Amino acid sequence: MIIDCHGHYTTAPREHEEWRRHQVAAKGLVRQVPPPPAISDDAIRASIEQGQLRVQRERGTDLTIFSPKTAAMDHHAADSEANIRWAEICNTLICRICRMFPRSFVGVCQLPQAPGVPLVNCIPELERCVRELGFVGCNINPDPCGGYWTDPPLTDRWWYPLYERLVDLDLPGMIHVSSSCNPNFHATGAHYLNGDTTAFMQFLTSDLFDDFSNAQLHNSPWRWRGSLSLGPIPRIGAGEPRPLQKLLENVFFDTCVYHQPGTELLARVIPVENILFASEMIGAVRGLDPETGHHYDDTRCYIEAVPWLTDIDREMIFEGNARRVYPRLRSRLELQSRL
Amino acid sequence: MIIDCHGHYTTAPREHEEWRRHQVAAKGLVRQVPPPPAISDDAIRASIEQGQLRVQRERGTDLTIFSPKTAAMDHHAADSEANIRWAEICNTLICRICRMFPRSFVGVCQLPQAPGVPLVNCIPELERCVRELGFVGCNINPDPCGGYWTDPPLTDRWWYPLYERLVDLDLPGMIHVSSSCNPNFHATGAHYLNGDTTAFMQFLTSDLFDDFSNAQLHNSPWRWRGSLSLGPIPRIGAGEPRPLQKLLENVFFDTCVYHQPGTELLARVIPVENILFASEMIGAVRGLDPETGHHYDDTRCYIEAVPWLTDIDREMIFEGNARRVYPRLRSRLELQSRL
Repeated sequence: MIIDCHGHYTTAPREHEEWRRHQVAAKGLVRQVPPPPAISDDAIRASIEQGQLRVQRERGTDLTIFSPKTAAMDHHAADSEANIRWAEICNTLICRICRMFPRSFVGVCQLPQAPGVPLVNCIPELERCVRELGFVGCNINPDPCGGYWTDPPLTDRWWYPLYERLVDLDLPGMIHVSSSCNPNFHATGAHYLNGDTTAFMQFLTSDLFDDFSNAQLHNSPWRWRGSLSLGPIPRIGAGEPRPLQKLLENVFFDTCVYHQPGTELLARVIPVENILFASEMIGAVRGLDPETGHHYDDTRCYIEAVPWLTDIDREMIFEGNARRVYPRLRSRLELQSRL
Repeated sequence: MIIDCHGHYTTAPREHEEWRRHQVAAKGLVRQVPPPPAISDDAIRASIEQGQLRVQRERGTDLTIFSPKTAAMDHHAADSEANIRWAEICNTLICRICRMFPRSFVGVCQLPQAPGVPLVNCIPELERCVRELGFVGCNINPDPCGGYWTDPPLTDRWWYPLYERLVDLDLPGMIHVSSSCNPNFHATGAHYLNGDTTAFMQFLTSDLFDDFSNAQLHNSPWRWRGSLSLGPIPRIGAGEPRPLQKLLENVFFDTCVYHQPGTELLARVIPVENILFASEMIGAVRGLDPETGHHYDDTRCYIEAVPWLTDIDREMIFEGNARRVYPRLRSRLELQSRL
């Protein structure tokens, strides 16, 4: 079985994101926001069958851990109330997809974060997604300010109410920024990479995993790139280094690395136990690589082509590690396959 | 000849940075700032002979392109007036070193940038460093706000007065952030990498090199790591991609990559013509790698060990490219060797 740990609903019907634009434009005046669009089952089915499901089949992957489009979370664009409503709508769409295609998709939720707003604000929607919708994880935006980084680091106690619920619920968090409203940062080319590098260094230089030894954080695509500085640099800053081992019990890296040399570096620097197969297909990096004729985001090819990986290594990357990092996956798969 | 393109005066006598702390603490009240310390030739000589010069000899490198300690530029910490004075003091120290050790060091200057202050403010000190002190390049801080990124991107016309002078003076700029005052960013582990990734994406998605086709930008350490996303991702965002070739005529990457797998990735992804040998030794990444017994920042070893590089490739990386990117180097070396 091949589990793709990183997919977003990037092919949603147009009116979905259009509604968000109206909501943002209303600037908190709820009466100026139109009712959310009634998206039919047929429209959802078409968007998936011609989208992620088609690509799953073409590439021979089996299951996608699927969440709302992260670039559209834009937590910085509206207030907390609006972001709660937007997260509910996005997550409910994901749930409908998972129920329509129970063998192919399992849900991960968007949190209704907002700049400067305590994380406790996210708990009701998180609980709903896990207990009512059957989701197996959540996306955590390390910078809900969209490129200005004015909220506290992920390792600050500010975030603990969220982590406490994650640990209670046996739920991993995936570190994933949204779009950037700072003109300095290209969204996918800079803000995404920077977000992952920043989060990882926060983890490395903190006591977070003393406090949350069971927390599981799945770092988002490209994250590993920053991690390259870690392989060889355990001694950073003053004082004793945090043991890298501790970190590797809690932090995992996915394979959204869109070329062969990069994937091989990932496999050289990060232990196989910490690598999760992922493509983020139909995502930020589309199109054919003119050098190889492959789709950039057909990341299975790169893993298959790493010469020194054994069959056992590949099984861990493609399936075993995901089952370990996403503990709710097993029961969810059993349940969904009976739907 | 082996030219190390990236060295900073990290071993300056203690009173040098102490004075800066007094200056910052005075918060613009010039009368509260003590006179700068009188640092003797002997103190400078000792700091270099036991520092960078010793390491040059141990590792068999010949010449370091040498600038003030970038972590101490901290443009965000004081106002424009104070930063002008601080840059003068730092650059003059570098000049004294280059005159004491004319075969071993060539100067690159710190600019007196300040958040929100137009770049024209930096021109007098830049001119002094080139015309009076014989420097061959300058460091450009892409985020003088120290991690808040509230100034315009490097590709904004805001920066053009600086670039116009660089082109006139035949001077390359080295993109290098200073320390971070944003608690989200570990200085060397996140802010440095993010700064380089951010700058590179700004270049890639702009018209800058249509306007400045002769500009030469030497990207700072780790930059290449972000660049990995570029090798395989020419299509970023909407519209036509900027041709990567244009960028490679103007942007260069150094070898401050502190392990073998990372260095090999650099050499696989970036053309040999665009790689500059550099170590930033006695810098951000000190100590011995317990896996290899090598100093992390002995980057010559990594280049020597890349199996597919030819002697001609290595000559370009160690010397030829630096002479091309730093055009004032030749005359400076001739002059200094006669001093």
